[in-house]
Order: sequence, then structure tokens, then C-alpha cells
Amino acid sequence: MIRLDATTREFGYAFTRLVNARREADEDVARDVAAIVARVRVEGDSAVRDYTRRFDRHDLDATGWRIDRADCAAAWEALDPDLRTALELAAERIAAFHVKQKPQDSETIDAAGIRLGSRWRAVDAAGVYVPGGRAAYPSSVLMNAIPAKAAGVGRLVMVTPTPDGETNPLVLAAAHIAGVDEIWRVGGAQAIAALAYGTASIPPVDVITGPGNAWVAEAKRQLYGVVGIDMVAGPSEIVVVADGRNDPEWIAADLLSQAEHDPTSQSILFTDDAGFADAVAGAVDRQIATLSTAETARASWDANGAIIRVRKLADALPLVDRLAPEHLELACDDAEALFRQVRHAGSVFLGRHTPEAVGDYVAGPNHVLPTGRRARFASGLSVLDFMKRTSFLALDAAGLATVGPAAVRLAEAEGLPAHARSVAIRLER
Amino acid sequence: MIRLDATTREFGYAFTRLVNARREADEDVARDVAAIVARVRVEGDSAVRDYTRRFDRHDLDATGWRIDRADCAAAWEALDPDLRTALELAAERIAAFHVKQKPQDSETIDAAGIRLGSRWRAVDAAGVYVPGGRAAYPSSVLMNAIPAKAAGVGRLVMVTPTPDGETNPLVLAAAHIAGVDEIWRVGGAQAIAALAYGTASIPPVDVITGPGNAWVAEAKRQLYGVVGIDMVAGPSEIVVVADGRNDPEWIAADLLSQAEHDPTSQSILFTDDAGFADAVAGAVDRQIATLSTAETARASWDANGAIIRVRKLADALPLVDRLAPEHLELACDDAEALFRQVRHAGSVFLGRHTPEAVGDYVAGPNHVLPTGRRARFASGLSVLDFMKRTSFLALDAAGLATVGPAAVRLAEAEGLPAHARSVAIRLER
Repeated sequence: MIRLDATTREFGYAFTRLVNARREADEDVARDVAAIVARVRVEGDSAVRDYTRRFDRHDLDATGWRIDRADCAAAWEALDPDLRTALELAAERIAAFHVKQKPQDSETIDAAGIRLGSRWRAVDAAGVYVPGGRAAYPSSVLMNAIPAKAAGVGRLVMVTPTPDGETNPLVLAAAHIAGVDEIWRVGGAQAIAALAYGTASIPPVDVITGPGNAWVAEAKRQLYGVVGIDMVAGPSEIVVVADGRNDPEWIAADLLSQAEHDPTSQSILFTDDAGFADAVAGAVDRQIATLSTAETARASWDANGAIIRVRKLADALPLVDRLAPEHLELACDDAEALFRQVRHAGSVFLGRHTPEAVGDYVAGPNHVLPTGRRARFASGLSVLDFMKRTSFLALDAAGLATVGPAAVRLAEAEGLPAHARSVAIRLER
Repeated sequence: MIRLDATTREFGYAFTRLVNARREADEDVARDVAAIVARVRVEGDSAVRDYTRRFDRHDLDATGWRIDRADCAAAWEALDPDLRTALELAAERIAAFHVKQKPQDSETIDAAGIRLGSRWRAVDAAGVYVPGGRAAYPSSVLMNAIPAKAAGVGRLVMVTPTPDGETNPLVLAAAHIAGVDEIWRVGGAQAIAALAYGTASIPPVDVITGPGNAWVAEAKRQLYGVVGIDMVAGPSEIVVVADGRNDPEWIAADLLSQAEHDPTSQSILFTDDAGFADAVAGAVDRQIATLSTAETARASWDANGAIIRVRKLADALPLVDRLAPEHLELACDDAEALFRQVRHAGSVFLGRHTPEAVGDYVAGPNHVLPTGRRARFASGLSVLDFMKRTSFLALDAAGLATVGPAAVRLAEAEGLPAHARSVAIRLER
């Protein structure tokens, strides 16, 4: 963890270093992934089966390619009732938030009598990647699948590796409540390639979302354009802007809730109170020791954590914009006023009673958010990622007479005579 | 050009071949582009200058790195008045259409007293790539720059190569009317890298859009994630669904307006009238001969053109959805009814007096549209490409008491104790 003071002369340089620090590992998997993608494209099922045998150590023909919806329903029924209730509350609130994102179709008739507008439709099929092992979070299943369903996607497919053939009951239960239509026991770059190109067994989809390791992320990158994908995801981060009237234990817990994700995660506190900064630093150290995730949290906090003193909280906001953090907590009385000045952040948590973790699970907004300063240009996952817009245009002879000559003139200027003629020929009568 | 008949038995196979035909060249430029991107990232201006000397044959330090806005204003004033009027009409109509796309912020307070919503903001800076040479279309400048301005982008940058130092007055005039803030005389992959990473001279941007050759497209792909980009663009295409009551000359002109773009372009006619199909085929052959773009149009029509007979027009629509064309003309009386059945198309042109070319220039909707079947999942360029959404959340103690316990339960189930604690610690009082 580094301590910086924004009122000092050296701060500018040190902060720029913090902003530019790359936490993403440059794993060079591009070539391996390209080989997997190419083989799945050509060989289909047999390549998928072969890679699954190699990486997940089971034979799909023996363990079964698909996981039945009945198995998901059974996993759901077998859950602890309080966990079921928690997932139900989460699913309901996520659905309620996302269904409101559905864009309106639009249509106008302008002064020239030209009718024009836009119409939105869901994609036919979407695929959600769910990692195996430690990072197989039921909340991720909800956050990816429910927006697709809210968009109106007819065929929602989940792919997930089952190492040694073992399924994760929590993930299956989440797939049940989220309304996933079809589950394939396939992971890695081979799953992404199978979803993008289709195989004899696995029909292709139009959009693929969901978190994954470096191989999965690279496969999505390589297949961007063959299918739609969600934003490239990097290490998670949180920025907390807090005054001295917060309980340091609360803020320490918030910082650690990012740090425990991964050693590459980042937690940064801005405060105008030096004593509070010390208290939070102490609380972080004390709390880490008690966590089952202590090793990860400690590695993250040591390498990437920061506490930055500012003269007043508002001074933090231009600095926050440069970080463009995935998560931003404004833990102070005038959170609303500060929020109005924020330009770049994935999701903002206002006030002292809004820990980021409540947004990870049950609040409703999506927890798939732009990382690594991408909130400068990217948004969290939404129904829009599962929909597309068709523009339309209808002219009659009078409308074409009004705007057509300008189109002819521009087509001529661009050296495109057939463009010009297709308009001019209709103006002749 | 191939002729197919959807009522025959062989049709299914032949049509699938047509759908799957790859018209995109697999130019293997990835390695060269990676080298250019890496060098510009490290060396900045000197690499940009060097590549410009090599590829565009002029020295930026001599010709000047930037093109002044005064030069654009002068180019505008020097235009033929009728061309100026045409560009003005186009700019006005494009702005009017796009400004309506600006999304609404949303905010609700739910039954638990939790306030949540989304807020949209423009990106700080956007870059528009404009190719040099033949494909330097002023209409592309308008179609890329005006949505960015409508979104509220503060700094709108244009990059364009000037081979041998020669600028294109039409492009400069278009930049003037579109309100471009800053123009750099740089093209190719080096221009994309400079915009993404910034150099000593060229400050970085957040989003890059605009057409380019294979090198430019690959650079955008490689830098996707460092910046936002528009959809990967492939060869252009048009599908026309027309009954026998159209003038075959009109429809032939429409088909040729795509064919003249590039040998890889594709023009497909669906009709229920075999005699009309023959008449259009004849008209295409006659019209091609008169075009200054005849060579390109002939190559495209011969290699990729198709005329497909269907029993009735509605039978064409499921086939159109499989093609998911960039442009779709419905040239018939009941265009509206047919349009309701279309699921996948970039832009639709309704009725006999709506040639696609009017949409390329002056109608208002964007002409940057998904190609190569990408309308299955992608949309045309819009203000959304230059904006991003921040979600927000505000809970008070009562709201947290309502949903917090479920968050704690889920965090525990996922093995994330700091997540659980950050909520639980606030529930204790």
C-alpha cells in the first residue's frame, strides 16, 4: 500500500504512476488460442471433446455434453432455503432493474414528409461463459443471464467447464433461477469457439458474455466480429472517497472486499482526514488477518492499495476521473453533490450505508463493469448488449424530390455514379 | 451473378453456400500492425513521423502535423455552392436524427427505499479515421463526426493520411461543417496507435471510429479495450426485395449502387416475378457499361451478385434474416407489413421511392452499419458509441437492512468474507 498526499509537490508524478500502473498480466496466449479456435472451427465436436479431455480431464461422450435443466432444478431444490431466498431476491431485483433498460423504438415524420426511425430487437441467441473452479460465482450467472432474458433473447446458452466432470451445484441453481435454456459442459477457448462458429452438437450464438481466464478473454477478443462480446475485463478495482466521520472499520472492509478478489485487484481511499487515513490503514491490517481470503487480500493491498490525502473531498474528483474506476464509493454526507462532478466511473455507491458489495449481489444494477480505466468509454453490461437497432427510412415521391437532388450531388462529388443514378432515375418522372 | 429459385429442391444447399461465402479477404497484417502499434506506443512522435515518411511519402515536420481549422473553413468557402448546400442539408438532417438518440438518465426509488439508476455521459475525446485516396468520402466524415458532436464529445479529432502531402478539400470542407476540433495529417495503423496511446504531439482519445483499410481495421481490433471502437467493418451489401411492379431500371440502379463500392460488395435481389428478374438482370448489364465505376461494379456483380426467385415476397424474409444484410430495400406496396417480419438488418428502406443511396447521404440515419451478417448482433453507429453509462445506488440504513442480509448470505456462499463483512458490519447497529 502506498500513502500519497495530494497537497505535496511530488504528488503529480506519483499519482500519474499510479494511474498508469498496469496490473493486467500480459499472458501471451494469443497463438495457442488461435490454434484452438481454428481447430474447433474446422473439426467441431471432435476438437471440443479432445480439448475437454486434455484440459478438464473427462470425456464428454461419457460424462455427457449437456447438463439437463432437470439437474439445475434439482440443484435449486437442494439449496439451503436461506440461500434460495437470497438468490430469489437478487434475481428479482436484477430483473426489475434491467427490464427498464429496454430501449424505446422511435419513429418520426419530418417536415419533408420523410418517415424515419429505429427499431430494437433482441439477438436470437446468446451465450454466457461461467468459469469453473474458484471463480464460479452464482452471482455472475445472474448478472449475465438475466439481462439477456430481459432483452428478450429466445435461446440463452450457458457454457461452463466441469473439471474432472464435477459440476458446481451453486452455478446450476443460479442457471435455474436465471432461466438459462441450455447448458454445455465445455469451457476454455474451445467453448468460446464452439459458441461462435457452432459445431454439430452446439448451435452457434450471436453474442457471448461472461468472465473467464486469459484464454477465454483472448478467444472472445479473437472472435469479436464473428459474434458480439462484452467488454474486455481486467482486474477489479474500487475507489472510496470518505470523510473522517466514517467508521474506519466499515471503510476498511470495503477496501478489502475488492482486495480479496485477486492479487491484481486495486483498492484506493481518498480522504481529507489524515487521522482517519491512519485509522483505516490500521483497520485493514487487523481485518485482513481474520479473512479466509487473507493471502489474496494481503497481496493485493500490499502491491496495489493506496491511501491518498486530499485537502477537501472535492479535490479527489478530478483524480477519480483519471482513474475512471470500476467502483466508486462516496462515503460522506454530500455524496449527491460530489456525484454530480464525477465523469468517469462504472458504478457509484452513494452515502455511508451503500457498501459496494451490496451492488455485487442484490441491489439490481449489473456487477459486470468496465475495469482498467475503461469507464472512460465503456459501460456496464446491460440489455443493450443483447439487442441491436435497425434504422429505417420511408420516402414518397415528394420526399425524394426534397432531399434527392442533394444526394445526387454528393454521390457525384464522391465519384459514385450508380449511387447518383439510383436517386436521379426516380426524380425523372 | 447467380440465379437461384427458392421453390426448387437444390435451393437450400445453394443458399446456405451464399450465406456462408466469405467475401472478406484474410489479409495477414496482424504481425505488421502489432509492430507498428508497439513502436508508436514506445517512440511516439518519431515513430509516427517515420511511418508517415515511409507510407505517405512526406515529412510531417515539413508539411505540418496538423491541418488548421482555418484551412477547413477555406475549403468550405471554396466549394461549389450547390455542393455546399447539399452538405449543409445532409449535416442538418444527420444531426437532427442523431440528437434524438441521446439516452435518458433514469432514477427510481423502490419499495425498500433504495435509490438506483443510470446516468449517461459523453466520452471526453473521440477520434474519427478518414481514409486517404479514393475512399475519402465527405459523407463518412459527417456520419462519424456528427454523432460524436450530438453525444456531446468535447474534443473531436480527425486523423487522415495525406499521401505526398496532398489534402482532400472535400474532406476538409466536411470536417468544417461537421465541427471537427482537431485534424492530424496521419493515417494507417500508426494513426490509430497514436490516438489510442497518445504521443507528445497528439493527445489520446477514448473512442476511435471510421472506415479504413485492412491495416487500420486490424489496428482498431488490436487496440479494442485500450479505447472503444466501432464495429469491425467488412464489405458492403444490399438486399432488395421487389415485386414485379417496380421499374427494373430503378432496381438495377440500386443493386449497382452497392456493387460499385468494391469488388467484394454484394447485391442480392429477391423477387416473386421471374420476368421481372430477367428484366433487372438485363438492366444491370446495360447500366454497368455506362458507369465510370464499371470495372468494380462488374467484378462485384459477377462474383457476388444474386437474383433469387421466391414464390411470394414474404417467403424471402426468413432468407433475408439469415443474410442479416447491412441494407435492405423493401420495394413493394406492403413494405410496412414485410418490415414487421424482419429480424436482422442494419437499415431498412421502405417503398419504391426509397433508394438506399438516399440513406447514404442525406436522409439522417447513419450509413455506418453492420456488414457481413453482423446485423444479427450489431447496430449502426450512433451517439451511444460516444457515450457511456454509470449506474448508481444509494441505500440508507433501512434499505440496507432489507437487502443486506441476502448479500451477506451470497457472499458467504461464494467464499468472499470481506464482501460479507462490508455489509454485515453496517447491519450490526
